Formats: sequence, structure tokens, C-alpha cells
Amino acid sequence: LFSVKDAKEVKRLIAEYFEGYKMDFQEVPLENSLGRITAKDIFVSEDIPGFDRSTVDGYAVHAKDTFGASEALPAILSLSAEIKVGEDILRELPIGYAAYVPTGGKLPQNADAVVMIEYTDDLGDGFIYMNKSVSAGNNVIYRGDDAKSGDVIIKANTTLKPKDVGALAAAGISSVLVKRRIKAAIISTGDEIAGIEESLSGSKVRDVNSYSINAALLEHSAEPCMYGIVPDSYEKIREVVAHALHDCDLVLISGGSSVGTLDMTCKVIESFGKPGIFVHGIAIKPGKPTIIAKVMGKPVFGLPGHPVSAYFIFKVFVKNVLNVLNGVKEEFESSIKAYTAFNFPSNDGREEYVPVRLERVGSRIIAHPVFAKSGLITTLTTADGYIIISRGDEGVVSGKEVEVIPF
Amino acid sequence: LFSVKDAKEVKRLIAEYFEGYKMDFQEVPLENSLGRITAKDIFVSEDIPGFDRSTVDGYAVHAKDTFGASEALPAILSLSAEIKVGEDILRELPIGYAAYVPTGGKLPQNADAVVMIEYTDDLGDGFIYMNKSVSAGNNVIYRGDDAKSGDVIIKANTTLKPKDVGALAAAGISSVLVKRRIKAAIISTGDEIAGIEESLSGSKVRDVNSYSINAALLEHSAEPCMYGIVPDSYEKIREVVAHALHDCDLVLISGGSSVGTLDMTCKVIESFGKPGIFVHGIAIKPGKPTIIAKVMGKPVFGLPGHPVSAYFIFKVFVKNVLNVLNGVKEEFESSIKAYTAFNFPSNDGREEYVPVRLERVGSRIIAHPVFAKSGLITTLTTADGYIIISRGDEGVVSGKEVEVIPF
Repeated sequence: LFSVKDAKEVKRLIAEYFEGYKMDFQEVPLENSLGRITAKDIFVSEDIPGFDRSTVDGYAVHAKDTFGASEALPAILSLSAEIKVGEDILRELPIGYAAYVPTGGKLPQNADAVVMIEYTDDLGDGFIYMNKSVSAGNNVIYRGDDAKSGDVIIKANTTLKPKDVGALAAAGISSVLVKRRIKAAIISTGDEIAGIEESLSGSKVRDVNSYSINAALLEHSAEPCMYGIVPDSYEKIREVVAHALHDCDLVLISGGSSVGTLDMTCKVIESFGKPGIFVHGIAIKPGKPTIIAKVMGKPVFGLPGHPVSAYFIFKVFVKNVLNVLNGVKEEFESSIKAYTAFNFPSNDGREEYVPVRLERVGSRIIAHPVFAKSGLITTLTTADGYIIISRGDEGVVSGKEVEVIPF
Repeated sequence: LFSVKDAKEVKRLIAEYFEGYKMDFQEVPLENSLGRITAKDIFVSEDIPGFDRSTVDGYAVHAKDTFGASEALPAILSLSAEIKVGEDILRELPIGYAAYVPTGGKLPQNADAVVMIEYTDDLGDGFIYMNKSVSAGNNVIYRGDDAKSGDVIIKANTTLKPKDVGALAAAGISSVLVKRRIKAAIISTGDEIAGIEESLSGSKVRDVNSYSINAALLEHSAEPCMYGIVPDSYEKIREVVAHALHDCDLVLISGGSSVGTLDMTCKVIESFGKPGIFVHGIAIKPGKPTIIAKVMGKPVFGLPGHPVSAYFIFKVFVKNVLNVLNGVKEEFESSIKAYTAFNFPSNDGREEYVPVRLERVGSRIIAHPVFAKSGLITTLTTADGYIIISRGDEGVVSGKEVEVIPF
């Protein structure tokens, strides 16, 4: 006897049931680490950069030799030998001297600033005329400014982005210890479901969810395992779910939305013992007939059979479970600022997901509704994203600013 | 003799030079089609759904048999045989009869509406009491409502999202003709650049750009080809660029930012003939010393050597080139609404990219600046995204609402 729960409560329960899930680790080469999640803090074992370097093309100097310099009264320094990028300069720069150094070049010993070449004149007389004064540190990155040996460069439980991969390269880290990808089973149930290559007959419909959920899992760096279509038989469904529970971290059962089919999915899930089902019905639209359970320590979803509903349940709750299993925080949600071109009635206490198509009109983006009878996945092809109308909302009035979450 | 161009003009030139680039096609299985770009319009060859189906658990009826029905005065219909999901019903529903049909079930011939089970009573006397009237089409999806045979289900030049993959599955399309992935060469140049596994000595720095750009290319469904590190030699760089031009669609040369290194990259590019370089310097910060050329019909970039600059040039212009080569429109940019916790001075006529770290404070998200000396890639590890201060902006005042683009 379950009561329908709201989205916030469902997420709280997911955290309660699955926080601390143990994921194995694996070592991957840096070039394959995009989107993977770090297993442990990653430390730097060398200073970055390893030497004091110039950030501009110019002249390395002792800053105090330039004090008071101006275009009217330049500081005149003797020209020392030129420094090339990559060259290792061990000698000191004598007081009163300037040495040409390109962007990225190593400063000579004791030099503490660089004057940009734009502020200097070289008349070819062996002297350089500095038209501007600099302070110590100007146009210089000191050894270890970027990171010092022993610093943590990337924390544990970080999803690696290109910038992070770059930082690891800067630290000379060529392989990374990451969490294994989450293996997620997709099981499609129902006598009425036909494979995409079968010829359709009678009242059969295609297996949509196996493919859209497979793609959504790939998009979130999980490893989908398609278990195919299972007929409406308690024994057969139970057998496949048992296999999936053995091989995977997460089981997604996409079933019919009719009462009979739902009942069978519930029976199968409960047959594996405690704690079993802890969510049966969520106050969101579409997607109400959703089941979430903990079976053998793993999350099991009974997804709605309607493809659009199943997709939104994935975006909101399966993604949340993936984050919890991976031990990563939910990211800040990004969206497209748009203005609605429609009125939308207040909902009946359910959080509602409304697909929209976007159109640029002048400097504004206008959101048009893509009304779809539940289950009509092809109407979503014209949608760019969706808006969320929260439980308490009075509905949406035409012209209102809304945040559109892109598909 | 080039003048520095602004971002808008650079994008206009990219479109002018590369629109209509020919990409080969390849057939991929539907389950591997996520993120790929359709080569041609995709047509449906069957009606979806293939039959009239119920969207609820209830009783299929002739709508006119329920006219005027209410709880006080129910319409009384004879019970016909139950219909199961997936069952093919060929017989007609006689006038005055109702047949139980589950969600997704096929309606009997001539039935034109379904009464939800909640609005009916079955007293076990062979009659069903309808407490509500329905109109034709209520709770029914008609054959072809989702898509009709011959309809275009996905247009050419569409980047496939999970919802699109689902729609193709619904149409029984098990493989998709897509454009080949764009092959992008990454060449790192400079005597001072060390591989990530080398031991560092003297004034060497690590090859960061090969890895961050490799990851950024993967994120955008391109196929990166790493050509490694090439020393500062005109002949050697020219040889590698020639190979890359032969094998790839796009060549990214990451070089030093010093004037001397830039000159050499330019000379190499120009040696391949017309039209050659058409952008030399962009009014954005960081990233000004950027070169874009058309060589043998293909785009060639001279990226800034500073990793942070190179990254932003990728996000803004290389991504733009990928879209143009692929023939896809730029997507609506999504962002995170935040409020700045800092003042930022007006820029000097250059579009400026400022990395920020986000923090949730109450119901607001606060953006803190992550100030980095140009080139310090590790400081980006703490950044969640960046804000763009456009050319004309007066700067940013603390507390201002800003759009943060996530990394």
C-alpha cells in the first residue's frame, strides 16, 4: 500500500538507499578519461610550471632597474644574450642588464619581471630603452604558481571534463584511476512488444525504450546491457531480472503501463526479498506509474511503458541514481532562457514536464509547446527541450520567462 | 597584413569558406547512433501506431452509447469479451456493448472511445455501468496519430539525441545513414614541449593541448588524431601538416604564442597555397593570437599555445567549424543563471571569457571569479563554467545576473 511520492522525497530516498554503493576502480589512459569519474584524489608530483617563465614577448629585467622609467625618460639597460623558448638558462642576469625572452621562455636567474616588447626600443646600439617601469612579478609565472608538488590537482568523485584532462596532462599524469562504468540492464517486457527488425502484425508495437534508454545511458557514461524483449510471464521475467541483478549495477525494467503488467513487475521485484519496492508512483507528469526498489543492494526501476514517460523518468531519477552510485554531486542544471508562446493550465499537484520547440525571434527565444498524447515519441523529435512546471505553480501564462532544459 | 577581427566576423568567414563541405556517409546500427548526424531525411514506412489503441485501462465503447451518462443515471452496456494487450481483435463491437481494454490495447472494430475504469462499475451481472459520457476519440490514439507511412520522421543534418533514437525505434528503423565523424588532426609544436611521460628538465613544459583538445573533440563527436609533438623546424612541421591535411578534415596546430613560433606556423600554412590564412588575430580574451586558414579546401587552425586560450578558441571557433563542416545549425546555448560576487572591469574592446566557480547560497547561485594568469590550466579545475563579457559591455558589477556556460 503505497502513496504517490513527490520528486524531492523520491530523491531523498534514493540517496538514503544507495549512498556509499561500492564501485570498482580501473586505470585508464588519460586520452580515454573524458567523462569518467576519479576514484581518488589525484596529487601532483612536480611543480607546474617547473621554472619561472615569461607570459609575454619582452625583456627580462631586475624590476628595480626600471623604476621611474617612462617614454619621456626611459631606463637604459645593457642587452644580454637572447633567450629561446625551451632553453635552459643557468646564468644570472647582471644588474643593469636586460635579456630578450619570448612568451613561455625561462627567466634568467635573479630576473624578477619582464617588460613587454611594446614598451621598449632597441636602437641596435647594445642598449634597450625601457619606456615603462615594472614591479617584481610583472609578466612572470613563478615556478609552482599553477600547482606545487604535493597539491591535489583533481579531487575524488570528479567527472573529468576537457579542462581537467588538460590539467592532468600539465602535471604529467598519463593514466587515471577512475570508477568502472555503471553497468545498467535494460529489460523490455510485454507480449505486445515487437523488436525493431520484426515485421509488425496485429496490435504489436515496437520496442522503443530499449533504444532511447540505451542512448540516454551512453550519454551519461554508463554501460548499457540490452536484455531484449521478455514476454508477460512471471517466470521468464524473473529469470532475466535475476541474470541482470547478477551482472549489472542497475536494472531498468520497461513494462506496460496497464495495471496487470505493473502488478507482475512488482511481484517479480518483491520475490527477491527485502527491502524491495520503496517508491510506487511519483507525482510527476508524465511518469506517474514508476516503481523504484532496492534488490540485492542494487537499484531496480519499473519504468512506465510509454516512451515519453520513461524518458523523463530517466532524466530525473535514473540520472539521479547514476550520480548517487558514482558518488558525484548533481551538477548545476543549465537551461535556455525563453519566453512562452502559450498558456498552460495549472497542474493537479503533479510536477509536469512540457516539451517545447524553440524559435529565435529578434533577440528573444520563444518556446512553443509540443503537445503530445502520452506515448507519442515521434512528436518529441521536433522538440528542443522541456520546461518543468512545479507542483505549486499556478500554470504558465503566455509571455512568461521560462527555463528550457535542452534534450 | 591582417587586422584583428571580432568573433562575429570570424564566424561569418568560417561559414563563407566552409559551408557545403562534403562529408562521406556511413550506415550505423541504431544503438550506436547517439550524437551522430543524419545524412538524409529519414522516412517512416509504417503507420505509428499501427492500430487504434487505448491510452487507459477501461472499456472500449461506441461513444454515442454513453451520451448523457452520469453517476446518477449511468449508461448500462452489455459486457463483451475482454481484450488483452497485444491481442489482435478482428471482430466488431456490437452497439450497446463494452469491452474491457487495458492501456495500449487494440480497440475492437467500430469502437471509437474508451471510458476509464474509474468511471465505471462492474457489479458482475454481465453489464457495465458507465458513470460518465465520452466523445469519439476520448482516451484513444488512432492508427498513424504518431506518424504516418511516408512522413519524414527525422530531417537531414540532425544530431541524434536519445529521444530521436527512440523515435527511429518506434518506426522500426534499425540502422541509420549518418555522416562520417570529422577527423581532426592535433599537432603540438615547439622545442619546449615535453610529452606527458617524459621526465621534465630545464625549461620544458608539458604537452597540455594535445590532451585537452583531444577530449574536447571527443565531446563533440569528432574523431581526434594525435600527431604528437613536432620541434620548431619549418620542414618538420610542414611534413606533419601535409600528412594531416591528407588524412583529416580539420587540422589544429597548437604552437607557442611567441611571435617567432607564430611566424613559423604562418609560413608553413601559406606554403600550401591559396586561399591560406583568412583570420590572424581575434578580438577575444584570452585567445587573441589565433590563426584560421583554408588549405586544400580544409580548415587549419593555429591555436594559441596557452592551454586556457586554446580551450576557449576551441569552444567558440573550432566547435563552430565542426558544425559548419557537418552542416548542422548552432544549438541554442544553455547556461546556468547566477549572480556575480565580484566587480569586473570593462574590457578593452575584446570579448572576454571569465572562468567562474559556482556556489549555491539559499535559492540563488553565486558566481565567484577564478582569476588565472593566462596559461594556468590547473586553476580551471576549480571552475564550473565561464561568463562572456561582450565587446561593448561596461564590465560586470557585483550582484549582477549573469549566464554561466558550463564547462
